[in-house]
Amino acid sequence: MTVWIHRRSEDEVAAEIAAAAGPLAGLRLAVKDNVDVASVPTTAGCPDYAYTPVDDAAAVAALRAAGAVVVGKTNLDQFATGLVGTRSPYGVVDNALRPGFVSGGSSSGSAAAVALGEADIAIGTDTAGSGRVPAALHGIVGIKPTVGVVSTAGVVPACRSYDCVTVFAADLELAGRAMAVLAAGAPGRPWPVDTRLAAPPQPVVAVFSELPDLDTEWRTAFDRTVAALRDRGARIAEVDPAPFLAAAKLLYGGALVAERYSAVGEFIDAHADAVDPTVGAIIRAARDIPAHQLVTDLAELERLRALALASLEGADVLLTPTVPGHPTIAEVAADPIGVNSRLGTYTNFCNLFDLCAVAVPAGTVGEARFGVTVLARAFEDAVAFDVAALIAGQPDSQESAWPPEVAPVQELIVFGAHLRGQPLEHQLIELGARWAGPVRTSPRYRLGALDTIPPKPAVTRVSDGETGVSVAGERWLLSPAALGRFLAALPAPMQLGAVELEDGSWRTGFSAAGAAAESAKDISEYGGWRAALAAGAV
Amino acid sequence: MTVWIHRRSEDEVAAEIAAAAGPLAGLRLAVKDNVDVASVPTTAGCPDYAYTPVDDAAAVAALRAAGAVVVGKTNLDQFATGLVGTRSPYGVVDNALRPGFVSGGSSSGSAAAVALGEADIAIGTDTAGSGRVPAALHGIVGIKPTVGVVSTAGVVPACRSYDCVTVFAADLELAGRAMAVLAAGAPGRPWPVDTRLAAPPQPVVAVFSELPDLDTEWRTAFDRTVAALRDRGARIAEVDPAPFLAAAKLLYGGALVAERYSAVGEFIDAHADAVDPTVGAIIRAARDIPAHQLVTDLAELERLRALALASLEGADVLLTPTVPGHPTIAEVAADPIGVNSRLGTYTNFCNLFDLCAVAVPAGTVGEARFGVTVLARAFEDAVAFDVAALIAGQPDSQESAWPPEVAPVQELIVFGAHLRGQPLEHQLIELGARWAGPVRTSPRYRLGALDTIPPKPAVTRVSDGETGVSVAGERWLLSPAALGRFLAALPAPMQLGAVELEDGSWRTGFSAAGAAAESAKDISEYGGWRAALAAGAV
Repeated sequence: MTVWIHRRSEDEVAAEIAAAAGPLAGLRLAVKDNVDVASVPTTAGCPDYAYTPVDDAAAVAALRAAGAVVVGKTNLDQFATGLVGTRSPYGVVDNALRPGFVSGGSSSGSAAAVALGEADIAIGTDTAGSGRVPAALHGIVGIKPTVGVVSTAGVVPACRSYDCVTVFAADLELAGRAMAVLAAGAPGRPWPVDTRLAAPPQPVVAVFSELPDLDTEWRTAFDRTVAALRDRGARIAEVDPAPFLAAAKLLYGGALVAERYSAVGEFIDAHADAVDPTVGAIIRAARDIPAHQLVTDLAELERLRALALASLEGADVLLTPTVPGHPTIAEVAADPIGVNSRLGTYTNFCNLFDLCAVAVPAGTVGEARFGVTVLARAFEDAVAFDVAALIAGQPDSQESAWPPEVAPVQELIVFGAHLRGQPLEHQLIELGARWAGPVRTSPRYRLGALDTIPPKPAVTRVSDGETGVSVAGERWLLSPAALGRFLAALPAPMQLGAVELEDGSWRTGFSAAGAAAESAKDISEYGGWRAALAAGAV
Repeated sequence: MTVWIHRRSEDEVAAEIAAAAGPLAGLRLAVKDNVDVASVPTTAGCPDYAYTPVDDAAAVAALRAAGAVVVGKTNLDQFATGLVGTRSPYGVVDNALRPGFVSGGSSSGSAAAVALGEADIAIGTDTAGSGRVPAALHGIVGIKPTVGVVSTAGVVPACRSYDCVTVFAADLELAGRAMAVLAAGAPGRPWPVDTRLAAPPQPVVAVFSELPDLDTEWRTAFDRTVAALRDRGARIAEVDPAPFLAAAKLLYGGALVAERYSAVGEFIDAHADAVDPTVGAIIRAARDIPAHQLVTDLAELERLRALALASLEGADVLLTPTVPGHPTIAEVAADPIGVNSRLGTYTNFCNLFDLCAVAVPAGTVGEARFGVTVLARAFEDAVAFDVAALIAGQPDSQESAWPPEVAPVQELIVFGAHLRGQPLEHQLIELGARWAGPVRTSPRYRLGALDTIPPKPAVTRVSDGETGVSVAGERWLLSPAALGRFLAALPAPMQLGAVELEDGSWRTGFSAAGAAAESAKDISEYGGWRAALAAGAV
């Protein structure tokens, strides 16, 4: 039993599945054993550390409330310190698809449980890559949201400032749905009122100008992914990896590891024999690092972050391989620190720079699964998700992009030049708006064509008693700040106000000033701008 | 020479004043000697530490570009470590108004220079109260903006994460004007797109339920200030001071002081004889604090901050005495740490909790100046400023509230129920909008009265060739997110769009849907809603 540390009885699970209700009803959930499940021991991969919590962690409670059913607690690199899946007294977690090779860690059991089909979704944690590395090595999806947007209440801290709750699933669509539930049901850091809600259809994708430590065939696989993305409309830009890789080294090579000592150092000092020797050595070494070195390292980190973010200016996301290769368990045993460290080359910097990430499968390299990670700025989780969907060749999965479910969102109904594919759509795309499908007004409107450049519609409500038509439009989601800015830039005679939809609800949408609308050519008979365009009426 | 460490020649200064141009033209500027002025030594209060910078600090450059003229560099508590004004080898800074008593520090010389009339404005820095304490003890104004909104480039770090550039002036109006220039010309941390731009006219003012360490007569003075504020419409709410005072103790009593060691520790170790004994002892003691203690203290600080902010929920600002009393220089000599520590009781927690503050005079206690500080949440500098203006009895100084000059701002022109004092004004006040005076449209509009509750105007543009009138309205400033939210909540038939003003510019303002506007009663002849109300036409 290496994947699971604790499994609930099949009867219990079956009964709960039968009774489950909600958006995730009956999905089997595996929980990494550094995350509390009420009345089940939390070990963090260390039997002597175990305690039995009274309550579910906030993340577990959120998924359960949505109908997911906990099937058990999964093995991990002890105290979530490792990227290999071998640092546990409960046993090494073999790669579920490739015996003898590492599972990746520290959320090793959670990823393996999903890859084995023993769970539909799994909770992991990720500080240095623990929610992405094992996803990549198992050919599944791992979403590492912006630091803090999912509460870490009830999670054993590893490196408290950077710990994230993550989700694993076989595909992006399910991972996105689960993350929506997590972020809504276990909220943490508040979302800004100018959150970008979508990637542009032709995103600018940054890639490193050099890819150190990458096995040759893995390099080929990465280039193939980039080429496919270019074929799908992305523009590729190269950035210098230096500040990213320098930050990665600070995570364990500097004073930041003192966070790990702060979390479990006293326990480790008191229970030397109970602790994995590699994990114990790493954390114990942090005891005597002086505070002023931490201050200096944090300042250096801030400097590197500023450089890195400046290099990403103009790019929507950064694309990297998730791991540089797939080591064997024997290789880890021979060099526990070195192999682990190499595995984190492309993941360590992410949380330190306050980036979000989506790890997705991208084919195979021989017998190994190859995976890439899409990284985006803090709170641009929707941008990362959309580009991941483009890579996965699953544009439909964009419907489960989760940030619009939790970030502050307003709606805007458009009828003409801002319809998808029309000349002013780009204004909404640039504001980070997300297209959300067609709508129709109630049959109380008149549609006119204004004499503007480009031509624009005038949708005006008819007087009581007058006959109107239902006008076809489209719905965009956008942040409150984006809506405010859009309005502030809107030229006369266009106006925005409440428009009645066919379901009787009122939404903010386009209209036009009275005098201009009156002089507009009446094209109500077409019932919409696209139909009028197609008929040559505009 | 205790106030000044370096003075420029009177001829140089006079020549620059004569040639000065810009919003601060010819104002004499004193600069604390831990802030760079090009070609003048920066000592940070330590002769052996001195270096001569090539460039002005960002803050100095901003004020100079606006026409201010540097008259010299001012004395300070060495390395900005102190609140007394006695910790400098350049000599004790006597209180400018009360010899034998402390000036307050660490920006002792800057505050004294303004109090003595030797400078019109002065730059200070503030980590634990250094920009507020000496303001209070000199009966002048000190603005301590939100951490980071003024760049600290070219400032010798004290406790880098919490250091702020501040401004001193004799009154709030001038201090606000100078801060507008600083924040615009030396920008740092970006302003959020939902920045509150004003205090409500009847603000909720939190005060501590207990005021520890406060001399009896100072307590009376504080109560008097609170009573006056209540008379001016404020509502008073009591909060528990415990989390605030606990955080204050962490600043020097915990591991945070390692930031000071990180900044100048190596210098101090190498130049023991060159350093003020009290300052040296404080910073040297930080050398051996372990990093994991800093991690723990920062977590504790975060916990305390969450408690404190929760207790301020519903309050616009927190009002405290700035200092608990006025010690003599002899008292400091007898107990250098204890007296200093007590002086920071009401200032130490501010930057740790990411609050902004305005210190204003509030009368006298015997021969001492009494002062209070208005604290507000990060980026709510305009809220703090407005309440400070209410305390100062200078409502006109609200015109120099500076955040609208630098935060993202949109405009909204209103014509009826959202005019000042009208029934829906509260909607804009709740969104943090700032009233910015009357405006008129171009004479191309018609004013109607809609049959709504409350009654609302329909301002619609007349057709080309038709005769219109100029309609009186009012301008509000509000954040992009506030404008978006306002629009999203706007009920039909009201609409927003571009309105032409009498100066020919177009601004976002109110209109009404065509059919509704047509059926409105024409009240154009009154030229505005207030006039129509006064005439009984609405």
